[in-house]
Amino acid sequence: MDFQKDEYQRRLRQVRKQLRGLNVEGLIVIGVENVRYLTGFTGHDSWLLVLPRNVVLITDSRYTEQAQAECVGCRVVERKGGLAKELETIVAKQKGITVLGVEDRCSVAMLKGIRKFLSPRIKPVGQVVENVRAIKTDVEVKLICKAAKIAFDAMDWALKQLQSGMTEREFAALYEYKLSAYGAKPSFETIAAFGANGSRNHHQPRQRKLKKVDTILLDFGASYKGYCSDMTRCFAVGRVTPFFQKVYETVAESQNTAIEIIKAGVKGCDADAAAQAVIRQADLPVYGHGLGHGLGLEVHEGPRLSNADKKGTLEAGHVVTVEPGVYMQGKLGVRLEDDVLVTAHGVRILSRDERFKVKPERVPLLKV
Amino acid sequence: MDFQKDEYQRRLRQVRKQLRGLNVEGLIVIGVENVRYLTGFTGHDSWLLVLPRNVVLITDSRYTEQAQAECVGCRVVERKGGLAKELETIVAKQKGITVLGVEDRCSVAMLKGIRKFLSPRIKPVGQVVENVRAIKTDVEVKLICKAAKIAFDAMDWALKQLQSGMTEREFAALYEYKLSAYGAKPSFETIAAFGANGSRNHHQPRQRKLKKVDTILLDFGASYKGYCSDMTRCFAVGRVTPFFQKVYETVAESQNTAIEIIKAGVKGCDADAAAQAVIRQADLPVYGHGLGHGLGLEVHEGPRLSNADKKGTLEAGHVVTVEPGVYMQGKLGVRLEDDVLVTAHGVRILSRDERFKVKPERVPLLKV
Repeated sequence: MDFQKDEYQRRLRQVRKQLRGLNVEGLIVIGVENVRYLTGFTGHDSWLLVLPRNVVLITDSRYTEQAQAECVGCRVVERKGGLAKELETIVAKQKGITVLGVEDRCSVAMLKGIRKFLSPRIKPVGQVVENVRAIKTDVEVKLICKAAKIAFDAMDWALKQLQSGMTEREFAALYEYKLSAYGAKPSFETIAAFGANGSRNHHQPRQRKLKKVDTILLDFGASYKGYCSDMTRCFAVGRVTPFFQKVYETVAESQNTAIEIIKAGVKGCDADAAAQAVIRQADLPVYGHGLGHGLGLEVHEGPRLSNADKKGTLEAGHVVTVEPGVYMQGKLGVRLEDDVLVTAHGVRILSRDERFKVKPERVPLLKV
Repeated sequence: MDFQKDEYQRRLRQVRKQLRGLNVEGLIVIGVENVRYLTGFTGHDSWLLVLPRNVVLITDSRYTEQAQAECVGCRVVERKGGLAKELETIVAKQKGITVLGVEDRCSVAMLKGIRKFLSPRIKPVGQVVENVRAIKTDVEVKLICKAAKIAFDAMDWALKQLQSGMTEREFAALYEYKLSAYGAKPSFETIAAFGANGSRNHHQPRQRKLKKVDTILLDFGASYKGYCSDMTRCFAVGRVTPFFQKVYETVAESQNTAIEIIKAGVKGCDADAAAQAVIRQADLPVYGHGLGHGLGLEVHEGPRLSNADKKGTLEAGHVVTVEPGVYMQGKLGVRLEDDVLVTAHGVRILSRDERFKVKPERVPLLKV
């Protein structure tokens, strides 16, 4: 067990504090990562009911055994019928519950079902558990570091197997296979994009084969004990063209600029704007995605570092990606991405690895 | 391209026909598989707007290039701001749109956002595209067969690598790695459960090592060109105990009984009840999950074959799993699962493979 009972109690206290502010007496937790965060349960299709004095996990027979072994500080109920019906049975036994919150990530169909069965008023609320999750503890930061280390280890091994003629899909599969040896799995579908495919930000690896002179964009991560890492590195194969080198330097400078700005109190949109400005000054096309996103139990979670969000301010304990890029359709794609912990005075880079250190002045060159 | 333009047009006609019955003038499609089904687009985070005379995919810069290459019969719009805002821009240009449907799998938060931006009335509707998807065409059935074939090929290879001392996780990783060689990926997280772990229906593979005398439950599938297979097989290692043999026979008989009953017009709950009766008669504990579920672009989709759904009736063209099991905590788990196409007069088994044929009288025995 990575987290002690008192850590789960702390999390619940923080959740309940927010619930009081929202004027609801309890919360129906839907998100699998939120359920895991509050109980340690790693299964799916289960809801957590957080009440003022107790916490109940509602699961089904597929997970009962696992839930009993994993859950910390909560009662496990195996439902026989629908979730909503079981929820009503539990709530009916409690006294004085008149308003219950439900996470607004719940589907419209599900909300309808809950309202049909439950007597208390049901109020959708957003970002309660997520607010607590956004600030990472030391143990969580260590797990993210470990998830980064594992991803680099697996990628280092996979790169040693790389040969010309290998397809993007084969390469991604090698990387993902190696993760399992470390007790981890991919935190998202690995992106291995050769040549011009790098311009597709979310490229799905296909049958494109590596040439003797080529470029590679790898966006890869690991999920270890539930915690995610998410990095991107670019390589040249055979030789580097001056233009690719120029783009690489610009993206590296853009990333450095953002990393130097980030600290508690800085707005995410300001970091994004600073990174974009470097690319614009180099007369290169500015990336269309955000500069970065939070990560933890989910590979995409709050906060966002994006021009589209003018309000969000970074806080100490946030863990975010910093990932500017330059994309030119049919030509190239370069993105560099690291995971950083926001601190009062700056950042701590969690995806630091000598083998994958970005040296702006030199695109890493592979021989195949 | 596996599907021709006229197939996409047929799907859209069927969707529009239902929309007229629901008194909505268009539909906001949220589900990734639903979007894929109507357009061929394989990316994520994109919505489809189905209007009476046109169809628009709203995506972002990460996917624009891919969407333009993949989409059949629809316009691709790259959004700059939020999805809801872009939706309003498109809808505002149409004349006479007063009521729009939105899939009720959409989150409560998302619905709130859409209602904030859009002027037409927004009405949540359930199971529109899903209703069309539930009936498979010949091409879809062929793809599911192929997904089953690939899964068996990869599993056959993985079983040849199996050794005592290998962990559940290593074995699952080998299987998943091999899938990639066939251009496929796992259709769900592979379940490799050794010994008593088989009683955990959704067991996540861990560090449990295979013994020289042991049992194995493997629940595995492949996703090929988007279409899923989902099978379960059980094995004994070294030798078979009489009790395991008895349970295996009972589960095989339970599965056969259900398969013999299933045809168009039969209720899913009746097939489930028949399968359960066989297990009850053998004085063994009845499984807590349903007998089966539909599969296609999603590994779990309609219809359900479950005692909990007293209404659902099977139709010709449905593809469903048939997967009874017996689970005894701390002792054993046996499940047998195949994928079948429902026809007017019975079923066609899509996961037929000589190497993995279930012979009730003999638990397949592995030497490691």
